[in-house]
Amino acid sequence: VAGRVRVFIACSLDGFIAGAEDDLSWLPEPDPNEDYGYAAFIAETGAILMGRGTYDVAAGFPEWPYGDTPVYVATSRPLEPVAKTVKAVKGTPGKMLATARRKAGDDDVYLDGGALIRSFLDAGLVDDLVVTLVPVILGSGAPLFAGTAARQALVPHETRIFPSGLTQLRYGVVPAAPKPAARRRSRKRSDA
Amino acid sequence: VAGRVRVFIACSLDGFIAGAEDDLSWLPEPDPNEDYGYAAFIAETGAILMGRGTYDVAAGFPEWPYGDTPVYVATSRPLEPVAKTVKAVKGTPGKMLATARRKAGDDDVYLDGGALIRSFLDAGLVDDLVVTLVPVILGSGAPLFAGTAARQALVPHETRIFPSGLTQLRYGVVPAAPKPAARRRSRKRSDA
Repeated sequence: VAGRVRVFIACSLDGFIAGAEDDLSWLPEPDPNEDYGYAAFIAETGAILMGRGTYDVAAGFPEWPYGDTPVYVATSRPLEPVAKTVKAVKGTPGKMLATARRKAGDDDVYLDGGALIRSFLDAGLVDDLVVTLVPVILGSGAPLFAGTAARQALVPHETRIFPSGLTQLRYGVVPAAPKPAARRRSRKRSDA
Repeated sequence: VAGRVRVFIACSLDGFIAGAEDDLSWLPEPDPNEDYGYAAFIAETGAILMGRGTYDVAAGFPEWPYGDTPVYVATSRPLEPVAKTVKAVKGTPGKMLATARRKAGDDDVYLDGGALIRSFLDAGLVDDLVVTLVPVILGSGAPLFAGTAARQALVPHETRIFPSGLTQLRYGVVPAAPKPAARRRSRKRSDA
């Protein structure tokens, strides 16, 4: 099975992945008694493709959070990588994915960052979503999905309820309906 | 127990209660084998307070969906009620709520409509939320919570998972922390 393109992300009930000015203070500390599945998710990840905003936030953390996993940062601006595993990529979603895919092989590609995720959804390149809902309304900030160009149907896979108050929703993304093939014109129209 | 102020609403994964141009076609038909709790919710409702946009959509339905329940429509524009139970109200959230409360007595007031719900959240007048997540990303439309002025912490009450793919989240709204009362200055400071 070829690797999937996956999203694993937390958002507020109103769909923001960061509050105003990149505020992440509303994200709860992980409860040590709860397994949100991140370790298992990362174990299946061969490469991470993230937006520039997400990278800039992660690069400011005291410790680089992605270990040895290759990280591709979607950006057309100069990038000074904080780790040897970090490379800049640019171009269409399909082109950036091809670069990450070469590195990931049959493992999954982990997509991160609101704008990047939306552009990949619009390009029909996302296989599934793991969204952890945090019980808070932020009111404003960086949206996760709002802003996609087209409606996107989802297939519910699983919902996990955590005693801490988090709800984790797992969805498959329905591939866009293929465009109807150009129909061959039949020589005669049948009235039957 | 005095009646609560409650929200019972469906939204897309990206937090919209209607798509562009009031599109509601993404809302699934209720599954007859699933009880989403609406009948129980309405049984505890003494009055409905809804925004003008929500009213205009509901007024266009083939049948008025709210039976004998008194409905107050928040609007400052002229209103031709489609039912004898419908009245226009205006003013602050507190003033409109007082009007609905007089009719609802000890029963609950059911708040409906994105802008109205947001203004009541900002006024600290909502007790709890029942949000049914539909497995779809709309990308644009009428937001449910995005646009509130302040961050709003929620208390998870219950999550219900339906085989059809809907996930219903129930939250209490945390009352805003009371402003610290003016502390009486003690005559002497104790070092104990």
